Amino acid sequence: MDKQYVVGVDVGGQTSKIGVVDARGDVLVQSVIRTDGHSDAADFVADLAAAIKELVVKANKVGEIRGIGVGAPNGNYYTGEIAFAPNLEWAANEAVPFSRMLSEALGGIPVSLTNDANAAAVGEMTYGAAKGMKDFIMITLGTGVGSGIVINGQVVYGHDGFAGELGHTCAVRNNGRQCNCGKTGCLEAYCSAIGVARTAREWLDMTDEPSLLRELEKITSKDVYEAAKEGDALALRVFNFTGAMLGRSLADFIEFSAPEAIVLFGGLARSKEFIYEPTYKAMNENVLPLWKGKVDLLFSQLKESDAAILGASALAWEL
Amino acid sequence: MDKQYVVGVDVGGQTSKIGVVDARGDVLVQSVIRTDGHSDAADFVADLAAAIKELVVKANKVGEIRGIGVGAPNGNYYTGEIAFAPNLEWAANEAVPFSRMLSEALGGIPVSLTNDANAAAVGEMTYGAAKGMKDFIMITLGTGVGSGIVINGQVVYGHDGFAGELGHTCAVRNNGRQCNCGKTGCLEAYCSAIGVARTAREWLDMTDEPSLLRELEKITSKDVYEAAKEGDALALRVFNFTGAMLGRSLADFIEFSAPEAIVLFGGLARSKEFIYEPTYKAMNENVLPLWKGKVDLLFSQLKESDAAILGASALAWEL
Repeated sequence: MDKQYVVGVDVGGQTSKIGVVDARGDVLVQSVIRTDGHSDAADFVADLAAAIKELVVKANKVGEIRGIGVGAPNGNYYTGEIAFAPNLEWAANEAVPFSRMLSEALGGIPVSLTNDANAAAVGEMTYGAAKGMKDFIMITLGTGVGSGIVINGQVVYGHDGFAGELGHTCAVRNNGRQCNCGKTGCLEAYCSAIGVARTAREWLDMTDEPSLLRELEKITSKDVYEAAKEGDALALRVFNFTGAMLGRSLADFIEFSAPEAIVLFGGLARSKEFIYEPTYKAMNENVLPLWKGKVDLLFSQLKESDAAILGASALAWEL
Repeated sequence: MDKQYVVGVDVGGQTSKIGVVDARGDVLVQSVIRTDGHSDAADFVADLAAAIKELVVKANKVGEIRGIGVGAPNGNYYTGEIAFAPNLEWAANEAVPFSRMLSEALGGIPVSLTNDANAAAVGEMTYGAAKGMKDFIMITLGTGVGSGIVINGQVVYGHDGFAGELGHTCAVRNNGRQCNCGKTGCLEAYCSAIGVARTAREWLDMTDEPSLLRELEKITSKDVYEAAKEGDALALRVFNFTGAMLGRSLADFIEFSAPEAIVLFGGLARSKEFIYEPTYKAMNENVLPLWKGKVDLLFSQLKESDAAILGASALAWEL
């Protein structure tokens, strides 16, 4: 009988989450280890392998694991490397052959690796809002803006494995905001959590308009969300602006791959009540007539606490 | 033995070109019929079928034709329909089941249909500059701007068969030019033959700068090209501007699908000597660091006179 369980690993800058997952997308057990504080990659891989072994024992699934799926910043599906990931100190300045190292540390069990946004797309297709879809685009609205593109049932990796950097397509051509990537005007500079906070701060500085946000020393996107829930006019306008920026970029993405749906995921997507309407409106105002009202705008259906693990684990079913 | 020849049909607004093609991409014989002047689709299909039969007899390949490939405006690969194509009077207001009609008129021979830009991409992949490539983007710079996207060796048709409308992604966000599609600021409004002529006209009207183009009643992109060859400063700047607009959009396309190359095709691509440098420069200035200098910018290698037929014919090899 085929092995019926997989392990999903979500490598984040500070912590990494591990879970044992069944074919229905239930996370049986999960644990967390530190990602930071490791001097080199071998050190981290050893700790991760030990934690995986321990978790599989705890789940009572020794010998029943089909493979390991890993979602990691700058993870490359083709090469299995995590390369030059600024937020991972042990992979910031080199290309780490992560899949091979982890597989070796676990006695040869197969490992599949991709970046976090692609993993989220595979997770959504396997267990979530995109179940049964062959053509959709996943947009992750977190600290940054990431994307996973699925065409004909397959994640688009491109010639080099790095396709799907939609957060760095141009949203504002002239005098756009500086983005962390070195370019200006990127979608990420406006529609990430950081972008939302920045919009609020800029608008507060520009006017004397009263706002709940004015009392705060440092504004986060969560503060903007809380203020919007209180009916704060400026906070509500920040979401309208953010949605309009996102929607008009989504229109261009539709013109590229004609997806059945666009799925939003991540922290900012939790502000669904404020972000959906302006995004959907701008998307349809800016897209070619043939797609107006034809492409669904959906939100992730994966449980927030499990989503990252599920996304990564879904990769392992293809092993 | 497999049938060793295919027929390519390029349906244009005024004329349609037909050719019998061998596996090496040589057009053995070709002919042309009128597309316009037909009262309805059945009428045109009957004429086209007669012309195809006649040409196959002339090529002495009766019984050796594997299939027919058709490139047509608004051609849908999935449905085999030509639907609501403004430039085809017999398909302007309805969805014509073109593949089925042509196949029936030819005794059941298989017919494959797609739009002209996708056909060009398949042609380039089969016989031209993209031979052996699995990930590339074809941009057709003609009266309009079209595109054919190839990912993992397959043309991207999307959920509905209409993917790849890159000419209508947004090049200018604010106060962009009106495009024929109804939107404003589309890439096509700047980087098509019509866009080039319009840029020249706008600049002539705005200044008193001397230019060879000033004498002309009506300016075409060919006039701008001829003037640029004479060293006309304004004409040269028009190409620099057009290339810069195109290049920065190409950067976004790279961020989508990480292609190995972008292939330019069509009338404007013939102005290679003026368009290549500003396009390549802007593409690399606007793309994420990881792709700088990594994606080739190529020009079609198909003979101009045969290209449209070859592109369409290449579809038939997949039948």
